[in-house]
Amino acid sequence: MITKEQVADAYKQIQDEICAGLELADGKGKFEEELWTREGGGGGRTRIIQNGNVLEKGGVNFSAVEGKLPDNIKKAFGVNEDDFFATGVSIVIHPNNPWVPIIHMNIRYFEMISGEKELRWFGGGIDLTPHYVIDEDAQFFHKSLKTTCDRFKNDFYPRFKKWADDYFFIKHRNETRGIGGIFYDRLNPESTGLSWDEIFEFSKGVGRTFLPMYTELIARNREKSFTPQQKEWQFQRRSRYVEFNLVYDAGTKFGLETNGRIESILMSLPPQANWVYDFKPQPGTEEEKTLALLKKGIDWI
Amino acid sequence: MITKEQVADAYKQIQDEICAGLELADGKGKFEEELWTREGGGGGRTRIIQNGNVLEKGGVNFSAVEGKLPDNIKKAFGVNEDDFFATGVSIVIHPNNPWVPIIHMNIRYFEMISGEKELRWFGGGIDLTPHYVIDEDAQFFHKSLKTTCDRFKNDFYPRFKKWADDYFFIKHRNETRGIGGIFYDRLNPESTGLSWDEIFEFSKGVGRTFLPMYTELIARNREKSFTPQQKEWQFQRRSRYVEFNLVYDAGTKFGLETNGRIESILMSLPPQANWVYDFKPQPGTEEEKTLALLKKGIDWI
Repeated sequence: MITKEQVADAYKQIQDEICAGLELADGKGKFEEELWTREGGGGGRTRIIQNGNVLEKGGVNFSAVEGKLPDNIKKAFGVNEDDFFATGVSIVIHPNNPWVPIIHMNIRYFEMISGEKELRWFGGGIDLTPHYVIDEDAQFFHKSLKTTCDRFKNDFYPRFKKWADDYFFIKHRNETRGIGGIFYDRLNPESTGLSWDEIFEFSKGVGRTFLPMYTELIARNREKSFTPQQKEWQFQRRSRYVEFNLVYDAGTKFGLETNGRIESILMSLPPQANWVYDFKPQPGTEEEKTLALLKKGIDWI
Repeated sequence: MITKEQVADAYKQIQDEICAGLELADGKGKFEEELWTREGGGGGRTRIIQNGNVLEKGGVNFSAVEGKLPDNIKKAFGVNEDDFFATGVSIVIHPNNPWVPIIHMNIRYFEMISGEKELRWFGGGIDLTPHYVIDEDAQFFHKSLKTTCDRFKNDFYPRFKKWADDYFFIKHRNETRGIGGIFYDRLNPESTGLSWDEIFEFSKGVGRTFLPMYTELIARNREKSFTPQQKEWQFQRRSRYVEFNLVYDAGTKFGLETNGRIESILMSLPPQANWVYDFKPQPGTEEEKTLALLKKGIDWI
């Protein structure tokens, strides 16, 4: 049986691999690390990169926290136990160049074991938020995720792709945050038909899908030139990212409500975001095309 | 007995006065009006000013909507009736110059009358969010509010000042949004000892406090020069404004959950906001002084 220490150790290693790989890809930016401890128990390694060649602001965070759950979270989870353990790696990257997409990844493990009762699950996902949707990149991104999913279970990609469409949705705008990806939660042997070892392997597999896939998207787009108007569009798209994270994102809510480390939780917010009243893209533009593609149920592959 | 039509008409007039006065003060920016109707009933007059001499982005919105309340709102209000009417004027102004404060005002009236049952109340408030706290301006601002409150009831200013401190609070940052002001809700004869006519007069009085007070603050600060670093600080303070409005503000939540007109609701968001990882002001700076004053319970007068 896997232990929480094993999961935390594997996640730390994935954090290390990703930070090293992103620094190499960026060529200039370096991660700065902040070690923190949580009053209720546990802590984390927040790693932030800023003002790189490609990466304007990003975080690759590891945390492993434990303690008592606040009542509102217990209610939301439908559990009565108090003692929890949660570990995960969370990534959000905001690139400089509007042709390079925003990316988010999270892999996490949660457990609550008291006496005979045992509750544990894996969750996570990767989703992509292009400022401009590029069809081939969207296809490549989704194929990468499908390849990882298919190694474990045939229904994972379609299930988790739909879950991402539903989760990364800005209800008040009636638009998806980006082109989706995969999202999954509460994976256990009952919900997957896999063993705990296999689910753990899947979680690590998702974590290791991130680097080669995102560095390829960086390589494809980093040298593309852009206009001030395209930069302005990037700032506007980022404002939608802010809206999603502050209004809907469960991880952000969980962090804010459990008195998490604020700067680690809100590292997902962009360096600059602009709100323009009632902006409507011109017909026939790249901006209009992108907006038209921010909807659920598109088969990107 | 006051009617909803009387309230809505008075609020419209206040909107007109404020828009005219702000255009005059700005000298360049003009409000653009958008008339909208709500599917469930009612509508509004959204008025947005952008790229003025002083006002970078602001909205002075009137709405009068009616219809059926969604279940979650009924629960939050503790009511069972379905048919509601709500009218109000909402203002948020983001100025160009970081020495001019962000301001917010809202006056509103809500009623639910069905058969013999009757539920109605007034709510509202004004609060100020200086990028840099200037003691004399803070005093002037709070004195203006106190003067209006004192015309109606001696305990209004202390009660509503404390209410604002508690309401305009960014819990996850452990800081107030700005220097507070007044906030009140569910005012009726029982909760105030005043007649409906007097409460209505108070609501209009708050509405008419806004213009002379804010134009004075504009006049005091509009010509002050500022550095790029001070502008950057303004963008960072605005990011806290975004956090408050998207995470805590009841009016924003109400709007998002009742399928309000998104662009009218989110006009409160700033034209540009920046998030800098773990920013700490230098000791002895104006930025540090301002942060130290973002707490509850300060007697500004």
